[in-house]
Amino acid sequence: MAEPLFRRLALIGIGLIGSSIARVNRERGGLAAEIVATARTEKTRARVAELGIVDRIEADPVAAVAGADCVILCTPVGTFRALAEQIGPHLSQGAILSDVGSTKQSVIRDVTPHIPQGVHFVPGHPLAGTEYSGPDAGFASLFDGRFTLLTPLPETDPAAVERMAEFWRRCGSMVEVMDAGHHDRVLAIVSHLPHLIAFTICGTADDLADESRQQVLKYAASGFRDFTRIAASDPEMWRDVFLNNREALLEMLARFMEDAQAMARAVRWGDAAYIEDKIQRGRRIRKSLIELKQA
Amino acid sequence: MAEPLFRRLALIGIGLIGSSIARVNRERGGLAAEIVATARTEKTRARVAELGIVDRIEADPVAAVAGADCVILCTPVGTFRALAEQIGPHLSQGAILSDVGSTKQSVIRDVTPHIPQGVHFVPGHPLAGTEYSGPDAGFASLFDGRFTLLTPLPETDPAAVERMAEFWRRCGSMVEVMDAGHHDRVLAIVSHLPHLIAFTICGTADDLADESRQQVLKYAASGFRDFTRIAASDPEMWRDVFLNNREALLEMLARFMEDAQAMARAVRWGDAAYIEDKIQRGRRIRKSLIELKQA
Repeated sequence: MAEPLFRRLALIGIGLIGSSIARVNRERGGLAAEIVATARTEKTRARVAELGIVDRIEADPVAAVAGADCVILCTPVGTFRALAEQIGPHLSQGAILSDVGSTKQSVIRDVTPHIPQGVHFVPGHPLAGTEYSGPDAGFASLFDGRFTLLTPLPETDPAAVERMAEFWRRCGSMVEVMDAGHHDRVLAIVSHLPHLIAFTICGTADDLADESRQQVLKYAASGFRDFTRIAASDPEMWRDVFLNNREALLEMLARFMEDAQAMARAVRWGDAAYIEDKIQRGRRIRKSLIELKQA
Repeated sequence: MAEPLFRRLALIGIGLIGSSIARVNRERGGLAAEIVATARTEKTRARVAELGIVDRIEADPVAAVAGADCVILCTPVGTFRALAEQIGPHLSQGAILSDVGSTKQSVIRDVTPHIPQGVHFVPGHPLAGTEYSGPDAGFASLFDGRFTLLTPLPETDPAAVERMAEFWRRCGSMVEVMDAGHHDRVLAIVSHLPHLIAFTICGTADDLADESRQQVLKYAASGFRDFTRIAASDPEMWRDVFLNNREALLEMLARFMEDAQAMARAVRWGDAAYIEDKIQRGRRIRKSLIELKQA
């Protein structure tokens, strides 16, 4: 087994992602000699202690980051500004501060002002997850074969970026480095918009009269079910994602709404050729995914 | 094994559904002593013969229905009017005519005028399918544990309805009888709208600039992928479904668009409570599905 990358890793928040990182270290090693994690509630702290996946569990982020040479924010992105302000003065010289948030420009905006000189900020986003949340939901193979995107600033120390890249490779990830703005636009269409649509259609169904709603649940296997799976994800996390990638998400949603309106018009006026063309394009995209082995 | 329900079953069209019915009969028996199927192209007919899943394969629907005591239309619903007109005069006295179309009011509208006295019309819809199509895509367990909805007219002979109910039970289905209008409204939300949305978002992604489109495919696992699966379904079939359940589909799409607009507004104005409430509702629906064992 490789020498651990860090002496002490602090995970601020230990839900699906944080607890999966902890499990990678327990099961495969190589990440950190010691892991300290935080959880807000007594109940979660007791559960994490019981799971035995970290060396120490703290309520106070300041206590957790003391002496850590790597700190990773694993809470919803809406909490990052206050967290950065709180832990900033207590970060160790030479330490790396990273995160796993699904939006990157907002994270850079919220976190950067609070980072002291001599601390290296490497924003990151593992494209991995399930519809489950909490420390019990994590598992060591969560990141295997999945991309992790790093969005360092131009002034970030390349050595710190490379250490985080190695961190994620040891988690099983394929690592790519890209601009934060580009990250946010791509994620808006591949992830944020699909989730927003899935939550919305569940709401539309939930608003139906009682009898119809029961039937929706009964016959969900006909397509609706596929939408509900991604709609089961963590509410706080997604609320924060939508609010923190507003521009790109609204842009993609507007494009989608125009396209849906055009489809509605084609259905209303019986434009069979238009509809068939759209369906064919959907199939082509699916086929491309299968060829790229991403399906 | 039970005595076959029918002497000669004619399957008009032998794609995913038709070939699955044929395979049920081959592997489990009980449906028909003989199955005749039709396919439009020489290539498909050769393939079906090679698969050996039916007793006879015909190009001409009229030849296929001769002497059949059950005829099931298994082609896209847009073909039903012309087919009914063509085969109507050749249906045997006392025979049952049924179908597997995803819309039921349009089928009743298109088929009923062409059914001679003494032939029993029992519209049906097995809620089963995959994203694959064609005679190679079928399999005998496709209908196991899935609902099949029958939407007979008030004047339909109850004995004919019961025979088709037994037919589908022997295919492994749970059978429910309902009004055609109710069927079309329920299917609009559980199936037709999710498919329309999935095709649309694939088109939206396909319209992105080249570089972004490549990245959508690369990072599709983040949510987009779940939409492409249902967008891979048969184009002709879905084109016909959209055009033949227009009223209900446009009504559900309009509701969805209003809800999506409200979500966009909440994102724009930072209405965290509204967004979180919608997400919570999505989760509740998912939870209901899990409790109903439909997830």
